[in-house]
Amino acid sequence: MYRLHIANKHYSSWSLRPWVLMRELGIAFDEQLSPFEPDSSWTRFRDFSPTGLVPCLVDDEQVVWESLAIVEYLAERHPGVWPSDGAARAWARSASAEMHAGFSALRSQCPMSCGVRVRMARLDDALLGNLARLEELWQQGLARFGGPFLAGEAFSAVDAFFAPVAFRVQSFGLPLGEASTAYVERLLALPAMQQWYAEALAEPWIDPQHEQEVEACGSVLADYRTPERD
Amino acid sequence: MYRLHIANKHYSSWSLRPWVLMRELGIAFDEQLSPFEPDSSWTRFRDFSPTGLVPCLVDDEQVVWESLAIVEYLAERHPGVWPSDGAARAWARSASAEMHAGFSALRSQCPMSCGVRVRMARLDDALLGNLARLEELWQQGLARFGGPFLAGEAFSAVDAFFAPVAFRVQSFGLPLGEASTAYVERLLALPAMQQWYAEALAEPWIDPQHEQEVEACGSVLADYRTPERD
Repeated sequence: MYRLHIANKHYSSWSLRPWVLMRELGIAFDEQLSPFEPDSSWTRFRDFSPTGLVPCLVDDEQVVWESLAIVEYLAERHPGVWPSDGAARAWARSASAEMHAGFSALRSQCPMSCGVRVRMARLDDALLGNLARLEELWQQGLARFGGPFLAGEAFSAVDAFFAPVAFRVQSFGLPLGEASTAYVERLLALPAMQQWYAEALAEPWIDPQHEQEVEACGSVLADYRTPERD
Repeated sequence: MYRLHIANKHYSSWSLRPWVLMRELGIAFDEQLSPFEPDSSWTRFRDFSPTGLVPCLVDDEQVVWESLAIVEYLAERHPGVWPSDGAARAWARSASAEMHAGFSALRSQCPMSCGVRVRMARLDDALLGNLARLEELWQQGLARFGGPFLAGEAFSAVDAFFAPVAFRVQSFGLPLGEASTAYVERLLALPAMQQWYAEALAEPWIDPQHEQEVEACGSVLADYRTPERD
């Protein structure tokens, strides 16, 4: 059985990508969650991941790190990871790779933090530029391949790559058009996304660095995490 | 025939990746070079690339952007893009994806600028950390798959992903161990790398932003570009 190393569901957007893909496609795996800890995460994660980063997939002797490589590894072994239509697949891979190294303002200014709701202090030009590109990309995919998912009828790896954006939109109240908002709602309603969200809210760990990043974004309006804290 | 959109060979590390892969594998393409221009590159590049970035591959009606997606598109159509051995392929994809979104200190502090030689003012901890990881990764690949290339006997996409690092090592005199230095020399000696380098040196364009980035690195010791300039 595959072993998938991830970090806190509340914070780890990269962990979510292969996790939600495997859950939605029914690919069985053993989940190994290692919580972030101040200053020690990278060193501890090096025990199982060559980069000290998550996610990391282990298949017997084979270690596959980096979410895009994990997706391609799974695509060689399971149907449905990428769309079967060639044009949709090329588009899906381009969009996923764009997410992998791009949208840096969105990723840094709106850190995934599933349980909180924040009123952003400001939306700067870089962030607005990212949101405009996101709209353009999503609308192109939904229109060209017919929806309801980005590359057609079925949830595939490109949707998994944008799944953390759905939590970011929810947490930070990011402004998107009607079609994109409906797509975000479809993502949030997926059984695997609901499971991730519920498990994120129930986590006992608070990571100071991630919390500071969220507090720097604006006013925290709500925190739906369930463990009682002092 | 494929059309590959690239930017200046002297500066554009992302352009180099699919270009050197296609040349080394003998995949024919029509090269479309659009030089960088201050403040206007992104707008002009949007005419052919959805992200306004290069490289971008066009195959009849199909537009494939992002270097990793281009590589996977080619891998579906041509042998040798990835190693045929499954373990080597999984490793090569992991290492390529790590390069795609990682090594940020190396990429920002040592911008590719093929023709210049620079004495770095300093090597900070982030850059030294990137170089240590590079050594570790390269030595793992060379040892595990037997060399002379990163994933075995043949040049493949993972070598193309690290090809810009070879020019950076040459330009900035970056310190690497013996095995890694020998690998850099193998990359620089490839016919496609020699062709890219010669064409980079002969380019007439100077982009002020790229030049400033290089000048910020330390002392420029030499500039082997050949066009005469005032």
